[in-house]
Amino acid sequence: MFNRIAIIGLGLIGGSLGLALKNAQAAKEVTGYDLGRGVCDRAKKIGAIDQAYQSLADAVRGADLVVLATPVGAMCALLQTLSPLLTPGTVVTDVASTKVQVINWAEEFLPQSVAFVGGHPMAGREMSGVEAADAHLFQNRIYCLTPTVHTRPAAVDKVLALIEVLGARVRFLEPAEHDGQVAVVSHLPFLASIATMLTATDDAAWGDASLLASSGFRDMTRLAAGNPEMYRDICFTNSSAIARRMDEYIVILSRIRQHIVDHDTDLSEIFTNAQQMRLQWQSIFEQGERK
Amino acid sequence: MFNRIAIIGLGLIGGSLGLALKNAQAAKEVTGYDLGRGVCDRAKKIGAIDQAYQSLADAVRGADLVVLATPVGAMCALLQTLSPLLTPGTVVTDVASTKVQVINWAEEFLPQSVAFVGGHPMAGREMSGVEAADAHLFQNRIYCLTPTVHTRPAAVDKVLALIEVLGARVRFLEPAEHDGQVAVVSHLPFLASIATMLTATDDAAWGDASLLASSGFRDMTRLAAGNPEMYRDICFTNSSAIARRMDEYIVILSRIRQHIVDHDTDLSEIFTNAQQMRLQWQSIFEQGERK
Repeated sequence: MFNRIAIIGLGLIGGSLGLALKNAQAAKEVTGYDLGRGVCDRAKKIGAIDQAYQSLADAVRGADLVVLATPVGAMCALLQTLSPLLTPGTVVTDVASTKVQVINWAEEFLPQSVAFVGGHPMAGREMSGVEAADAHLFQNRIYCLTPTVHTRPAAVDKVLALIEVLGARVRFLEPAEHDGQVAVVSHLPFLASIATMLTATDDAAWGDASLLASSGFRDMTRLAAGNPEMYRDICFTNSSAIARRMDEYIVILSRIRQHIVDHDTDLSEIFTNAQQMRLQWQSIFEQGERK
Repeated sequence: MFNRIAIIGLGLIGGSLGLALKNAQAAKEVTGYDLGRGVCDRAKKIGAIDQAYQSLADAVRGADLVVLATPVGAMCALLQTLSPLLTPGTVVTDVASTKVQVINWAEEFLPQSVAFVGGHPMAGREMSGVEAADAHLFQNRIYCLTPTVHTRPAAVDKVLALIEVLGARVRFLEPAEHDGQVAVVSHLPFLASIATMLTATDDAAWGDASLLASSGFRDMTRLAAGNPEMYRDICFTNSSAIARRMDEYIVILSRIRQHIVDHDTDLSEIFTNAQQMRLQWQSIFEQGERK
Protein backbone atom coordinates (compact mmCIF):
# COMPACT_ATOMS: atom_id res chain seq x y z
CA MET A 1 0.00 0.00 0.00
CA PHE A 2 2.83 2.37 0.98
CA ASN A 3 6.37 2.11 -0.26
CA ARG A 4 8.26 3.85 2.48
CA ILE A 5 6.84 5.50 5.57
CA ALA A 6 9.12 7.57 7.79
CA ILE A 7 8.13 8.13 11.41
CA ILE A 8 9.90 11.08 13.02
CA GLY A 9 9.64 10.84 16.79
CA LEU A 10 9.23 7.37 18.27
CA GLY A 11 7.30 7.93 21.46
CA LEU A 12 4.01 6.30 22.39
CA ILE A 13 2.23 7.61 19.28
CA GLY A 14 5.07 7.17 16.78
CA GLY A 15 5.86 3.71 18.12
CA SER A 16 2.22 2.63 18.05
CA LEU A 17 1.87 3.90 14.47
CA GLY A 18 4.88 1.82 13.48
CA LEU A 19 3.57 -1.31 15.18
CA ALA A 20 0.15 -0.94 13.53
CA LEU A 21 1.71 -0.40 10.08
CA LYS A 22 4.04 -3.36 10.48
CA ASN A 23 1.26 -5.59 11.84
CA ALA A 24 -0.85 -4.80 8.80
CA GLN A 25 2.12 -5.13 6.44
CA ALA A 26 0.94 -1.84 5.02
CA ALA A 27 4.34 -0.55 3.88
CA LYS A 28 7.35 -2.09 2.19
CA GLU A 29 9.52 -0.24 4.69
CA VAL A 30 8.92 1.76 7.86
CA THR A 31 11.85 3.96 8.81
CA GLY A 32 12.35 5.78 12.08
CA TYR A 33 14.25 8.71 13.54
CA ASP A 34 14.36 9.91 17.12
CA LEU A 35 16.68 12.27 19.00
CA GLY A 36 16.38 10.27 22.21
CA ARG A 37 19.31 8.08 23.15
CA GLY A 38 18.64 4.45 22.18
CA VAL A 39 15.00 5.12 21.30
CA CYS A 40 15.40 4.07 17.66
CA ASP A 41 17.03 0.80 18.67
CA ARG A 42 14.23 0.01 21.10
CA ALA A 43 11.66 0.84 18.43
CA LYS A 44 13.35 -1.55 16.03
CA LYS A 45 13.59 -4.22 18.71
CA ILE A 46 9.84 -4.21 19.41
CA GLY A 47 9.17 -4.26 15.67
CA ALA A 48 7.80 -0.75 15.30
CA ILE A 49 10.23 0.13 12.48
CA ASP A 50 12.31 -1.77 9.93
CA GLN A 51 15.19 0.63 9.84
CA ALA A 52 16.53 3.21 12.27
CA TYR A 53 18.45 6.22 10.98
CA GLN A 54 20.89 8.55 12.69
CA SER A 55 20.22 11.19 10.07
CA LEU A 56 16.90 12.84 9.33
CA ALA A 57 17.85 13.10 5.62
CA ASP A 58 18.34 9.34 5.36
CA ALA A 59 15.16 8.60 7.28
CA VAL A 60 12.89 10.62 4.97
CA ARG A 61 14.67 10.04 1.64
CA GLY A 62 12.23 8.67 -0.92
CA ALA A 63 9.40 8.30 1.60
CA ASP A 64 5.89 8.57 0.20
CA LEU A 65 4.59 9.43 3.68
CA VAL A 66 6.38 11.19 6.54
CA VAL A 67 4.64 11.22 9.92
CA LEU A 68 5.79 13.85 12.40
CA ALA A 69 5.20 12.45 15.87
CA THR A 70 7.46 14.71 17.94
CA PRO A 71 6.25 17.00 20.72
CA VAL A 72 4.48 20.04 19.26
CA GLY A 73 7.22 22.29 20.64
CA ALA A 74 9.74 20.67 18.30
CA MET A 75 7.59 21.06 15.16
CA CYS A 76 8.67 24.53 14.08
CA ALA A 77 12.38 23.70 13.96
CA LEU A 78 11.70 20.22 12.58
CA LEU A 79 9.70 21.56 9.62
CA GLN A 80 12.48 24.01 8.79
CA THR A 81 15.13 21.28 8.99
CA LEU A 82 13.04 18.85 6.95
CA SER A 83 12.19 21.31 4.19
CA PRO A 84 15.29 20.80 1.96
CA LEU A 85 15.47 17.07 2.73
CA LEU A 86 12.08 15.93 1.43
CA THR A 87 11.68 14.17 -1.90
CA PRO A 88 9.18 15.99 -4.18
CA GLY A 89 5.77 14.31 -4.02
CA THR A 90 6.16 13.29 -0.38
CA VAL A 91 3.09 13.70 1.81
CA VAL A 92 3.83 14.99 5.31
CA THR A 93 1.38 14.66 8.18
CA ASP A 94 1.67 15.30 11.91
CA VAL A 95 -0.05 14.05 15.06
CA ALA A 96 0.29 17.16 17.24
CA SER A 97 -2.38 18.16 19.76
CA THR A 98 -2.84 21.62 18.26
CA LYS A 99 -3.32 22.35 14.58
CA VAL A 100 -3.52 26.03 13.57
CA GLN A 101 0.06 26.85 14.54
CA VAL A 102 1.56 23.64 13.12
CA ILE A 103 -0.25 24.14 9.81
CA ASN A 104 0.97 27.73 9.63
CA TRP A 105 4.55 26.53 10.11
CA ALA A 106 4.09 23.78 7.51
CA GLU A 107 2.69 26.26 4.97
CA GLU A 108 5.51 28.67 5.73
CA PHE A 109 8.45 26.26 5.68
CA LEU A 110 7.67 23.27 3.47
CA PRO A 111 8.38 23.50 -0.29
CA GLN A 112 5.51 23.57 -2.80
CA SER A 113 6.61 20.14 -4.06
CA VAL A 114 5.53 18.57 -0.79
CA ALA A 115 1.98 18.27 0.56
CA PHE A 116 1.05 18.68 4.22
CA VAL A 117 -2.05 17.35 5.98
CA GLY A 118 -2.61 18.19 9.64
CA GLY A 119 -3.82 15.33 11.81
CA HIS A 120 -4.51 14.48 15.44
CA PRO A 121 -5.34 10.97 16.62
CA MET A 122 -7.41 11.05 19.83
CA ALA A 123 -5.52 8.26 21.55
CA GLY A 124 -3.23 8.07 24.52
CA ARG A 125 -2.25 6.08 27.56
CA GLU A 126 -1.06 6.78 31.08
CA MET A 127 2.42 5.68 30.08
CA SER A 128 4.62 7.36 27.50
CA GLY A 129 7.59 6.29 25.42
CA VAL A 130 8.06 3.64 22.78
CA GLU A 131 7.96 0.92 25.46
CA ALA A 132 4.27 1.71 25.95
CA ALA A 133 3.53 1.46 22.20
CA ASP A 134 0.51 -0.61 21.22
CA ALA A 135 -0.52 -1.64 17.69
CA HIS A 136 -4.18 -1.29 18.69
CA LEU A 137 -3.87 2.15 20.29
CA PHE A 138 -5.87 3.81 17.51
CA GLN A 139 -8.50 1.10 17.06
CA ASN A 140 -11.93 2.76 16.91
CA ARG A 141 -10.46 6.06 18.12
CA ILE A 142 -11.30 9.31 16.42
CA TYR A 143 -8.54 10.61 14.17
CA CYS A 144 -8.98 14.31 13.34
CA LEU A 145 -7.85 15.55 9.96
CA THR A 146 -7.70 19.28 9.37
CA PRO A 147 -7.09 19.95 5.67
CA THR A 148 -7.22 23.57 4.53
CA VAL A 149 -8.09 25.14 1.16
CA HIS A 150 -4.43 24.63 0.25
CA THR A 151 -4.39 20.89 0.97
CA ARG A 152 -4.28 18.60 -2.08
CA PRO A 153 -7.03 15.95 -2.14
CA ALA A 154 -4.53 13.22 -3.18
CA ALA A 155 -2.50 13.96 -0.03
CA VAL A 156 -5.62 13.66 2.12
CA ASP A 157 -6.34 10.29 0.49
CA LYS A 158 -2.89 9.07 1.47
CA VAL A 159 -3.45 9.96 5.12
CA LEU A 160 -6.93 8.41 4.97
CA ALA A 161 -5.27 5.17 3.89
CA LEU A 162 -3.04 5.37 6.98
CA ILE A 163 -6.06 5.97 9.22
CA GLU A 164 -7.78 2.93 7.71
CA VAL A 165 -4.75 0.77 8.52
CA LEU A 166 -4.86 2.03 12.11
CA GLY A 167 -8.54 1.12 12.44
CA ALA A 168 -9.36 4.67 13.52
CA ARG A 169 -12.41 6.76 12.62
CA VAL A 170 -11.71 9.94 10.67
CA ARG A 171 -13.24 13.32 11.53
CA PHE A 172 -12.69 16.33 9.29
CA LEU A 173 -12.49 19.70 11.04
CA GLU A 174 -11.26 23.18 10.32
CA PRO A 175 -7.92 23.69 12.14
CA ALA A 176 -9.35 26.50 14.30
CA GLU A 177 -12.44 24.46 15.04
CA HIS A 178 -10.23 21.57 16.16
CA ASP A 179 -8.16 23.81 18.41
CA GLY A 180 -11.25 25.37 19.99
CA GLN A 181 -12.73 21.96 20.73
CA VAL A 182 -9.59 20.40 22.22
CA ALA A 183 -9.05 23.59 24.25
CA VAL A 184 -12.21 22.78 26.20
CA VAL A 185 -12.10 18.96 26.34
CA SER A 186 -8.33 18.44 26.72
CA HIS A 187 -6.47 21.62 27.59
CA LEU A 188 -8.81 23.24 30.10
CA PRO A 189 -8.96 19.93 32.04
CA PHE A 190 -5.19 19.75 32.52
CA LEU A 191 -5.02 23.41 33.50
CA ALA A 192 -7.91 22.97 35.97
CA SER A 193 -6.06 19.98 37.38
CA ILE A 194 -2.78 21.89 37.76
CA ALA A 195 -4.57 24.82 39.39
CA THR A 196 -6.36 22.47 41.82
CA MET A 197 -3.03 20.99 42.85
CA LEU A 198 -1.43 24.40 43.29
CA THR A 199 -4.37 25.81 45.26
CA ALA A 200 -4.13 22.89 47.67
CA THR A 201 -0.36 23.05 48.12
CA ASP A 202 -0.17 26.86 48.36
CA ASP A 203 -1.84 26.56 51.72
CA ALA A 204 0.06 26.61 55.02
CA ALA A 205 -2.09 23.68 56.19
CA TRP A 206 -1.30 21.52 53.14
CA GLY A 207 0.76 19.05 55.19
CA ASP A 208 -2.29 18.31 57.34
CA ALA A 209 -4.88 18.69 54.60
CA SER A 210 -3.01 16.30 52.33
CA LEU A 211 -3.82 13.49 54.76
CA LEU A 212 -7.54 14.11 54.22
CA ALA A 213 -7.27 14.09 50.42
CA SER A 214 -8.83 11.03 48.89
CA SER A 215 -10.07 9.56 45.59
CA GLY A 216 -11.84 12.74 44.43
CA PHE A 217 -8.66 14.74 44.88
CA ARG A 218 -6.66 11.99 43.22
CA ASP A 219 -8.80 12.05 40.07
CA MET A 220 -8.88 15.84 39.90
CA THR A 221 -5.10 16.14 40.13
CA ARG A 222 -4.04 13.16 38.00
CA LEU A 223 -3.48 15.32 34.91
CA ALA A 224 -1.26 17.67 36.94
CA ALA A 225 1.35 14.87 36.93
CA GLY A 226 1.62 15.08 33.13
CA ASN A 227 4.65 16.27 31.17
CA PRO A 228 5.24 20.01 31.89
CA GLU A 229 7.03 20.67 28.58
CA MET A 230 4.26 19.05 26.58
CA TYR A 231 1.66 21.10 28.44
CA ARG A 232 3.65 24.31 27.92
CA ASP A 233 4.02 23.65 24.18
CA ILE A 234 0.31 22.96 23.86
CA CYS A 235 -0.48 26.20 25.71
CA PHE A 236 1.86 28.25 23.55
CA THR A 237 0.49 26.83 20.30
CA ASN A 238 -3.16 27.19 21.31
CA SER A 239 -3.02 30.21 23.57
CA SER A 240 -5.99 32.22 22.33
CA ALA A 241 -8.47 29.31 22.34
CA ILE A 242 -7.22 28.23 25.77
CA ALA A 243 -7.41 31.75 27.21
CA ARG A 244 -10.99 32.06 26.00
CA ARG A 245 -12.01 28.76 27.64
CA MET A 246 -10.25 29.72 30.86
CA ASP A 247 -12.20 32.97 30.90
CA GLU A 248 -15.45 31.05 30.50
CA TYR A 249 -14.38 28.63 33.22
CA ILE A 250 -13.60 31.48 35.61
CA VAL A 251 -16.98 33.11 34.87
CA ILE A 252 -18.78 29.85 35.71
CA LEU A 253 -16.71 29.35 38.87
CA SER A 254 -17.45 32.91 39.97
CA ARG A 255 -21.16 32.41 39.38
CA ILE A 256 -21.16 29.20 41.45
CA ARG A 257 -19.15 30.97 44.17
CA GLN A 258 -21.74 33.73 44.37
CA HIS A 259 -24.59 31.22 44.68
CA ILE A 260 -22.70 29.52 47.50
CA VAL A 261 -22.07 32.76 49.38
CA ASP A 262 -25.73 33.77 48.92
CA HIS A 263 -26.97 30.30 49.97
CA ASP A 264 -28.98 30.48 46.76
CA THR A 265 -31.09 27.39 46.21
CA ASP A 266 -30.47 27.67 42.43
CA LEU A 267 -27.25 25.87 43.24
CA SER A 268 -29.10 22.53 43.14
CA GLU A 269 -30.27 23.25 39.63
CA ILE A 270 -26.73 24.08 38.48
CA PHE A 271 -25.34 20.93 40.07
CA THR A 272 -28.18 18.82 38.64
CA ASN A 273 -27.52 20.22 35.19
CA ALA A 274 -23.82 19.32 35.44
CA GLN A 275 -24.73 15.85 36.70
CA GLN A 276 -27.15 15.22 33.80
CA MET A 277 -24.64 16.46 31.24
CA ARG A 278 -21.92 14.24 32.71
CA LEU A 279 -24.13 11.15 32.75
CA GLN A 280 -25.18 11.77 29.13
CA TRP A 281 -21.61 12.23 27.97
CA GLN A 282 -20.43 9.21 29.95
CA SER A 283 -22.89 6.84 28.30
CA ILE A 284 -21.85 8.02 24.83
CA PHE A 285 -18.16 7.79 25.79
CA GLU A 286 -18.54 4.28 27.18
CA GLN A 287 -20.30 3.13 24.01
CA GLY A 288 -17.26 4.35 22.07
CA GLU A 289 -14.86 2.61 24.49
CA ARG A 290 -16.64 -0.71 24.07
CA LYS A 291 -16.34 -0.68 20.29
CA MET B 1 -18.49 -2.85 74.76
CA PHE B 2 -21.64 -0.90 73.86
CA ASN B 3 -25.12 -1.70 75.05
CA ARG B 4 -27.21 -0.12 72.38
CA ILE B 5 -26.04 1.86 69.37
CA ALA B 6 -28.57 3.68 67.22
CA ILE B 7 -27.69 4.53 63.62
CA ILE B 8 -29.83 7.25 62.13
CA GLY B 9 -29.56 7.21 58.35
CA LEU B 10 -28.67 3.90 56.73
CA GLY B 11 -26.84 4.86 53.56
CA LEU B 12 -23.35 3.74 52.60
CA ILE B 13 -21.77 5.15 55.76
CA GLY B 14 -24.52 4.22 58.22
CA GLY B 15 -24.83 0.75 56.74
CA SER B 16 -21.07 0.17 56.79
CA LEU B 17 -20.90 1.32 60.42
CA GLY B 18 -23.60 -1.18 61.30
CA LEU B 19 -21.87 -4.03 59.49
CA ALA B 20 -18.53 -3.26 61.17
CA LEU B 21 -20.15 -3.08 64.63
CA LYS B 22 -22.06 -6.33 64.11
CA ASN B 23 -19.00 -8.09 62.67
CA ALA B 24 -17.00 -7.15 65.75
CA GLN B 25 -19.90 -7.97 68.08
CA ALA B 26 -19.19 -4.61 69.64
CA ALA B 27 -22.72 -3.85 70.82
CA LYS B 28 -25.50 -5.87 72.42
CA GLU B 29 -27.90 -4.23 70.00
CA VAL B 30 -27.58 -2.05 66.91
CA THR B 31 -30.80 -0.24 66.02
CA GLY B 32 -31.52 1.65 62.85
CA TYR B 33 -33.80 4.33 61.49
CA ASP B 34 -34.08 5.68 57.95
CA LEU B 35 -36.72 7.76 56.18
CA GLY B 36 -36.16 5.95 52.87
CA ARG B 37 -38.76 3.39 51.81
CA GLY B 38 -37.60 -0.13 52.65
CA VAL B 39 -34.07 1.01 53.58
CA CYS B 40 -34.33 -0.26 57.18
CA ASP B 41 -35.49 -3.67 56.02
CA ARG B 42 -32.61 -3.96 53.58
CA ALA B 43 -30.16 -2.88 56.30
CA LYS B 44 -31.53 -5.60 58.59
CA LYS B 45 -31.40 -8.17 55.79
CA ILE B 46 -27.69 -7.58 55.12
CA GLY B 47 -27.01 -7.72 58.85
CA ALA B 48 -26.13 -4.04 59.37
CA ILE B 49 -28.65 -3.64 62.23
CA ASP B 50 -30.44 -5.91 64.67
CA GLN B 51 -33.62 -3.95 64.85
CA ALA B 52 -35.31 -1.47 62.52
CA TYR B 53 -37.63 1.17 63.92
CA GLN B 54 -40.38 3.22 62.29
CA SER B 55 -40.06 5.83 65.02
CA LEU B 56 -37.02 7.87 65.85
CA ALA B 57 -37.97 7.83 69.55
CA ASP B 58 -37.95 4.03 69.66
CA ALA B 59 -34.68 3.83 67.75
CA VAL B 60 -32.73 6.05 70.14
CA ARG B 61 -34.41 5.07 73.43
CA GLY B 62 -31.82 3.94 75.96
CA ALA B 63 -28.96 4.11 73.43
CA ASP B 64 -25.52 4.79 74.87
CA LEU B 65 -24.36 5.98 71.43
CA VAL B 66 -26.36 7.59 68.62
CA VAL B 67 -24.65 8.01 65.26
CA LEU B 68 -26.16 10.55 62.89
CA ALA B 69 -25.38 9.38 59.36
CA THR B 70 -27.93 11.39 57.38
CA PRO B 71 -27.05 13.95 54.68
CA VAL B 72 -25.72 17.13 56.28
CA GLY B 73 -28.75 19.03 54.98
CA ALA B 74 -31.02 16.98 57.25
CA MET B 75 -28.93 17.53 60.41
CA CYS B 76 -30.48 20.77 61.64
CA ALA B 77 -34.04 19.43 61.68
CA LEU B 78 -32.89 16.03 62.94
CA LEU B 79 -31.08 17.50 65.95
CA GLN B 80 -34.19 19.51 66.86
CA THR B 81 -36.42 16.45 66.55
CA LEU B 82 -34.03 14.24 68.51
CA SER B 83 -33.51 16.68 71.36
CA PRO B 84 -36.50 15.66 73.55
CA LEU B 85 -36.17 11.96 72.63
CA LEU B 86 -32.66 11.26 73.91
CA THR B 87 -32.02 9.43 77.18
CA PRO B 88 -29.80 11.47 79.54
CA GLY B 89 -26.20 10.30 79.31
CA THR B 90 -26.43 9.39 75.63
CA VAL B 91 -23.45 10.32 73.47
CA VAL B 92 -24.36 11.65 70.02
CA THR B 93 -21.91 11.79 67.15
CA ASP B 94 -22.28 12.54 63.45
CA VAL B 95 -20.41 11.66 60.25
CA ALA B 96 -21.17 14.79 58.20
CA SER B 97 -18.66 16.25 55.73
CA THR B 98 -18.68 19.69 57.39
CA LYS B 99 -18.32 20.31 61.08
CA VAL B 100 -18.63 23.94 62.26
CA GLN B 101 -22.28 24.29 61.31
CA VAL B 102 -23.32 20.85 62.59
CA ILE B 103 -21.59 21.44 65.93
CA ASN B 104 -23.31 24.82 66.25
CA TRP B 105 -26.67 23.14 65.70
CA ALA B 106 -25.84 20.39 68.20
CA GLU B 107 -24.79 22.91 70.84
CA GLU B 108 -27.93 24.95 70.16
CA PHE B 109 -30.50 22.16 70.10
CA LEU B 110 -29.31 19.21 72.20
CA PRO B 111 -30.04 19.19 75.95
CA GLN B 112 -27.22 19.53 78.51
CA SER B 113 -27.82 15.93 79.61
CA VAL B 114 -26.55 14.68 76.26
CA ALA B 115 -22.98 14.94 74.92
CA PHE B 116 -22.13 15.62 71.29
CA VAL B 117 -18.87 14.81 69.46
CA GLY B 118 -18.44 15.88 65.86
CA GLY B 119 -16.83 13.32 63.56
CA HIS B 120 -16.04 12.72 59.90
CA PRO B 121 -14.74 9.42 58.58
CA MET B 122 -12.70 9.91 55.38
CA ALA B 123 -14.18 6.98 53.56
CA GLY B 124 -16.42 6.57 50.57
CA ARG B 125 -17.14 4.58 47.47
CA GLU B 126 -18.40 5.26 43.97
CA MET B 127 -21.70 3.66 44.90
CA SER B 128 -24.11 4.90 47.53
CA GLY B 129 -26.90 3.36 49.56
CA VAL B 130 -27.01 0.56 52.09
CA GLU B 131 -26.53 -2.02 49.29
CA ALA B 132 -22.97 -0.70 48.85
CA ALA B 133 -22.20 -0.99 52.59
CA ASP B 134 -18.94 -2.67 53.50
CA ALA B 135 -17.77 -3.70 56.98
CA HIS B 136 -14.20 -2.80 56.01
CA LEU B 137 -14.99 0.63 54.56
CA PHE B 138 -13.23 2.43 57.44
CA GLN B 139 -10.24 0.10 57.78
CA ASN B 140 -7.07 2.21 58.01
CA ARG B 141 -8.99 5.33 56.91
CA ILE B 142 -8.60 8.58 58.75
CA TYR B 143 -11.51 9.40 61.05
CA CYS B 144 -11.58 13.09 62.02
CA LEU B 145 -12.89 14.02 65.46
CA THR B 146 -13.54 17.67 66.20
CA PRO B 147 -14.25 18.08 69.92
CA THR B 148 -14.63 21.63 71.22
CA VAL B 149 -13.99 23.13 74.66
CA HIS B 150 -17.54 22.08 75.52
CA THR B 151 -17.05 18.41 74.65
CA ARG B 152 -16.84 16.02 77.59
CA PRO B 153 -13.74 13.75 77.55
CA ALA B 154 -15.84 10.68 78.46
CA ALA B 155 -17.94 11.27 75.35
CA VAL B 156 -14.82 11.50 73.19
CA ASP B 157 -13.65 8.19 74.69
CA LYS B 158 -16.90 6.55 73.64
CA VAL B 159 -16.46 7.66 70.03
CA LEU B 160 -12.80 6.59 70.14
CA ALA B 161 -14.01 3.12 71.09
CA LEU B 162 -16.23 3.15 68.00
CA ILE B 163 -13.32 4.24 65.79
CA GLU B 164 -11.22 1.42 67.18
CA VAL B 165 -13.91 -1.10 66.29
CA LEU B 166 -13.98 0.31 62.74
CA GLY B 167 -10.21 -0.07 62.39
CA ALA B 168 -9.89 3.60 61.46
CA ARG B 169 -7.16 6.06 62.47
CA VAL B 170 -8.28 9.03 64.54
CA ARG B 171 -7.26 12.62 63.82
CA PHE B 172 -8.21 15.42 66.17
CA LEU B 173 -8.88 18.80 64.57
CA GLU B 174 -10.57 22.06 65.44
CA PRO B 175 -13.93 22.17 63.61
CA ALA B 176 -12.91 25.25 61.57
CA GLU B 177 -9.57 23.68 60.76
CA HIS B 178 -11.34 20.58 59.52
CA ASP B 179 -13.72 22.60 57.36
CA GLY B 180 -10.88 24.63 55.84
CA GLN B 181 -8.93 21.51 54.95
CA VAL B 182 -11.82 19.60 53.39
CA ALA B 183 -12.80 22.76 51.49
CA VAL B 184 -9.57 22.48 49.52
CA VAL B 185 -9.13 18.70 49.22
CA SER B 186 -12.78 17.67 48.82
CA HIS B 187 -15.08 20.58 48.06
CA LEU B 188 -13.00 22.62 45.62
CA PRO B 189 -12.38 19.46 43.55
CA PHE B 190 -16.08 18.76 43.05
CA LEU B 191 -16.77 22.40 42.22
CA ALA B 192 -13.87 22.47 39.75
CA SER B 193 -15.28 19.31 38.20
CA ILE B 194 -18.79 20.74 37.89
CA ALA B 195 -17.43 23.98 36.39
CA THR B 196 -15.34 22.00 33.87
CA MET B 197 -18.44 20.09 32.76
CA LEU B 198 -20.51 23.27 32.47
CA THR B 199 -17.81 25.16 30.57
CA ALA B 200 -17.64 22.34 28.04
CA THR B 201 -21.39 21.99 27.60
CA ASP B 202 -22.12 25.73 27.53
CA ASP B 203 -20.44 25.81 24.14
CA ALA B 204 -22.36 25.73 20.86
CA ALA B 205 -19.83 23.17 19.57
CA TRP B 206 -20.28 20.80 22.53
CA GLY B 207 -21.98 18.15 20.37
CA ASP B 208 -18.87 17.95 18.20
CA ALA B 209 -16.32 18.58 20.96
CA SER B 210 -17.84 15.85 23.13
CA LEU B 211 -16.65 13.28 20.57
CA LEU B 212 -13.06 14.41 21.14
CA ALA B 213 -13.31 14.18 24.93
CA SER B 214 -11.31 11.31 26.35
CA SER B 215 -9.86 9.90 29.58
CA GLY B 216 -8.56 13.25 30.87
CA PHE B 217 -11.99 14.80 30.50
CA ARG B 218 -13.57 11.72 32.04
CA ASP B 219 -11.45 11.97 35.20
CA MET B 220 -11.90 15.71 35.51
CA THR B 221 -15.70 15.48 35.29
CA ARG B 222 -16.32 12.31 37.29
CA LEU B 223 -17.16 14.24 40.46
CA ALA B 224 -19.69 16.34 38.51
CA ALA B 225 -21.88 13.20 38.42
CA GLY B 226 -22.19 13.22 42.22
CA ASN B 227 -25.34 13.89 44.22
CA PRO B 228 -26.45 17.52 43.66
CA GLU B 229 -28.31 17.78 46.97
CA MET B 230 -25.34 16.48 48.92
CA TYR B 231 -23.05 18.97 47.16
CA ARG B 232 -25.48 21.83 47.80
CA ASP B 233 -25.75 20.98 51.51
CA ILE B 234 -21.97 20.80 51.82
CA CYS B 235 -21.65 24.20 50.11
CA PHE B 236 -24.26 25.82 52.34
CA THR B 237 -22.70 24.46 55.55
CA ASN B 238 -19.13 25.37 54.55
CA SER B 239 -19.70 28.44 52.42
CA SER B 240 -17.03 30.78 53.75
CA ALA B 241 -14.16 28.26 53.63
CA ILE B 242 -15.26 27.16 50.15
CA ALA B 243 -15.57 30.73 48.86
CA ARG B 244 -12.06 31.48 50.08
CA ARG B 245 -10.60 28.44 48.33
CA MET B 246 -12.49 29.26 45.13
CA ASP B 247 -11.01 32.76 45.24
CA GLU B 248 -7.53 31.30 45.56
CA TYR B 249 -8.25 28.86 42.74
CA ILE B 250 -9.43 31.68 40.46
CA VAL B 251 -6.31 33.74 41.27
CA ILE B 252 -4.08 30.81 40.31
CA LEU B 253 -6.07 30.15 37.13
CA SER B 254 -5.83 33.82 36.18
CA ARG B 255 -2.08 33.82 36.75
CA ILE B 256 -1.64 30.74 34.55
CA ARG B 257 -3.89 32.30 31.90
CA GLN B 258 -1.71 35.41 31.82
CA HIS B 259 1.47 33.34 31.43
CA ILE B 260 -0.18 31.51 28.52
CA VAL B 261 -1.25 34.70 26.78
CA ASP B 262 2.23 36.19 27.29
CA HIS B 263 3.94 32.98 26.12
CA ASP B 264 5.91 33.32 29.34
CA THR B 265 8.44 30.53 29.77
CA ASP B 266 7.79 30.58 33.55
CA LEU B 267 4.86 28.37 32.64
CA SER B 268 7.17 25.33 32.61
CA GLU B 269 8.22 26.05 36.15
CA ILE B 270 4.62 26.33 37.33
CA PHE B 271 3.67 23.08 35.60
CA THR B 272 6.78 21.33 36.94
CA ASN B 273 5.95 22.49 40.45
CA ALA B 274 2.41 21.09 40.15
CA GLN B 275 3.81 17.82 38.77
CA GLN B 276 6.28 17.44 41.63
CA MET B 277 3.63 18.21 44.24
CA ARG B 278 1.26 15.69 42.68
CA LEU B 279 3.88 12.95 42.53
CA GLN B 280 4.85 13.58 46.16
CA TRP B 281 1.25 13.47 47.33
CA GLN B 282 0.49 10.40 45.24
CA SER B 283 3.28 8.34 46.79
CA ILE B 284 2.08 9.21 50.30
CA PHE B 285 -1.52 8.51 49.33
CA GLU B 286 -0.66 5.13 47.81
CA GLN B 287 1.25 4.14 50.92
CA GLY B 288 -1.91 4.86 52.92
CA GLU B 289 -4.05 2.88 50.45
CA ARG B 290 -1.81 -0.16 50.76
CA LYS B 291 -2.10 -0.29 54.56
